[in-house]
Amino acid sequence: MEMEQVLHMNGGDGKTSYAKNSTIQKQGMHKAKPILEDSIKTLYCNNNFPKCFKIADLGCSSGPNTLSFVREIVDVVDDTCRCLNRKAPVFQVFLNDLPGNDFNAVFRSLPSFTASLMEEKGSNFGPCFVAAMPGSFYGRLFPNSFLHFVHSSYSLHWRSRVPESLVSKSPAGAALNKGNICMAKTSPHDVHKAYFDVFERDFKLFLRSRFQEMVPGGHMVLTVVGSDIRTPSSKTCTVWELMGMALYDMVLEGLIEEAKLDGFNLPYYAPTPEEVKRVIQTEGSFKVRRFETYKIDWDANSENGMRGENVARNIRAVAESILGNHFTNLNMDDLFERFAKKITEYLEKERGQCTTIAVSLIKA
Amino acid sequence: MEMEQVLHMNGGDGKTSYAKNSTIQKQGMHKAKPILEDSIKTLYCNNNFPKCFKIADLGCSSGPNTLSFVREIVDVVDDTCRCLNRKAPVFQVFLNDLPGNDFNAVFRSLPSFTASLMEEKGSNFGPCFVAAMPGSFYGRLFPNSFLHFVHSSYSLHWRSRVPESLVSKSPAGAALNKGNICMAKTSPHDVHKAYFDVFERDFKLFLRSRFQEMVPGGHMVLTVVGSDIRTPSSKTCTVWELMGMALYDMVLEGLIEEAKLDGFNLPYYAPTPEEVKRVIQTEGSFKVRRFETYKIDWDANSENGMRGENVARNIRAVAESILGNHFTNLNMDDLFERFAKKITEYLEKERGQCTTIAVSLIKA
Repeated sequence: MEMEQVLHMNGGDGKTSYAKNSTIQKQGMHKAKPILEDSIKTLYCNNNFPKCFKIADLGCSSGPNTLSFVREIVDVVDDTCRCLNRKAPVFQVFLNDLPGNDFNAVFRSLPSFTASLMEEKGSNFGPCFVAAMPGSFYGRLFPNSFLHFVHSSYSLHWRSRVPESLVSKSPAGAALNKGNICMAKTSPHDVHKAYFDVFERDFKLFLRSRFQEMVPGGHMVLTVVGSDIRTPSSKTCTVWELMGMALYDMVLEGLIEEAKLDGFNLPYYAPTPEEVKRVIQTEGSFKVRRFETYKIDWDANSENGMRGENVARNIRAVAESILGNHFTNLNMDDLFERFAKKITEYLEKERGQCTTIAVSLIKA
Repeated sequence: MEMEQVLHMNGGDGKTSYAKNSTIQKQGMHKAKPILEDSIKTLYCNNNFPKCFKIADLGCSSGPNTLSFVREIVDVVDDTCRCLNRKAPVFQVFLNDLPGNDFNAVFRSLPSFTASLMEEKGSNFGPCFVAAMPGSFYGRLFPNSFLHFVHSSYSLHWRSRVPESLVSKSPAGAALNKGNICMAKTSPHDVHKAYFDVFERDFKLFLRSRFQEMVPGGHMVLTVVGSDIRTPSSKTCTVWELMGMALYDMVLEGLIEEAKLDGFNLPYYAPTPEEVKRVIQTEGSFKVRRFETYKIDWDANSENGMRGENVARNIRAVAESILGNHFTNLNMDDLFERFAKKITEYLEKERGQCTTIAVSLIKA
């Protein structure tokens, strides 16, 4: 499976689009705001006020969150400049995601974004040039020493590929991660190791690439879905475990071949806070300035009482492209109705939450 | 009419897409190739071999021509480096067009483009980062002194807007450019002046913006559809005059209201070679290195004998977004069938040709 071709959030602005279903990510951005502000202010003042402030948002996706991040950064720098009685810099912002992302939708909203920015900030401001740089962030995207600030929100839990040992058949012909579609409580140790190895390689490549692309003293703020399922006492489960159950029900009803489900593993690994820290330290390109974790409810911002349906729609916006690529001809509406029921049942017993890790780094 | 919203080539790769119908533009690029090569070689050697070579293609559209231009530039620089036994630079390429352009289609073809580039050039090459910068080139798109080389092919005949005097009603209520949809042989002097004024303002703004964005000694190669309809002896007409006739036939048949057609003028003005030269000289930011004109057959590359249909499809890919925005509910298939007939009849008598101006400039 070529990740660059199949992994992307649902485009457009229809009811299953990521644009309409990214409230968790929005909540996460809100919680990470103080870290982001602190990081930008420090960077901006310590870098001798660059005339052109170059920023990248890696894994930007499409939808309201995409440009609201840009807006946040511009606001912080602009406020800092006002306090210090300096002219705001020119901004050059690069939105990055895989080539399958719906950049057209982002671009269509750019003229009104820019117009309102200019109107609010006045003539002393900007300009703010917003470009797109498609490609995988597990590799180089920019020339050497180009960027001042890098941001990535809710993207780094996606892997560049599924671990090979999960794709190639084991000698006995049995699937290694049977009953699961990604790393889960019931996954054997070998599966954890295989997923962790890919995570470690990906994340080191990410850090090394950014180190090359950033100016000395450049800052980076990352938020990533973290995991505590490796805590033995944990009774909770992840949405992906519930998704696995919904798919397995469809196997039992003959709607999906068992071997097809056995062969499906998500390119997804949510690391523990310790794993994130350790890789940053071992790789050595960046120093940790702040490191925080917090929990976000799966159904953050649900107001209509349809908690299961809301969470299912959020996940659909994220996972439909990958599911559709593997399970061709599968009735997606059917799958996501079953999934919504599983979530509703779960939320009657447990508080569905997702751990988020937010980290602020500086180029060492 | 907000040009930024409505002017764009047809997206995707269907039978009326620009991707499938841009053979004239391809022919034009082919003819301009020697100028492009000469310009890049000179620039590259005189600029002390920049480590990161920054390029913009303004009005890139989407389709096979978009990346083949990037490929051409990369090839020329790479060849030059091989001859001089130097390492090729890192390339940072910015594709620009209005926000309504189908950038998604361009991005989808990027992974295979990059892969084949790396394979052919070998490990000593690159990398070549291809980004998109949406926005109007009649204004700023990049920070100061950022670009080494700028290219724009078959875009600068599109205006930022329709002249106001053609949109606001004249005192007598009669349309100023009646019977035409852009500047034509039969247009009155006032129409010519109105279109020329917008062209002059646009082109000066274009040159001034690029001057600010380019490094000292930076080069620019522009190709633009030129005009010789102001030559009194000229018996030929432009495709747009034939399009006007097809639309007028539909007025006579009651399919379009006459006032609706009277109110339609294209944001299009093909300047004469003298007009281009004069504006460059008056504006003063750039020195002309080479200035050439040549003619290209409307049906360049037509191989199936369906000359009228082929030309009509080329124009449809370019003009459908604007026509559809003004003449809502008009049957486009019907219009373009009539248009194809007009072209076929014309090509039985005349050799349909389009003048192209190619100019190579250096930042003064």
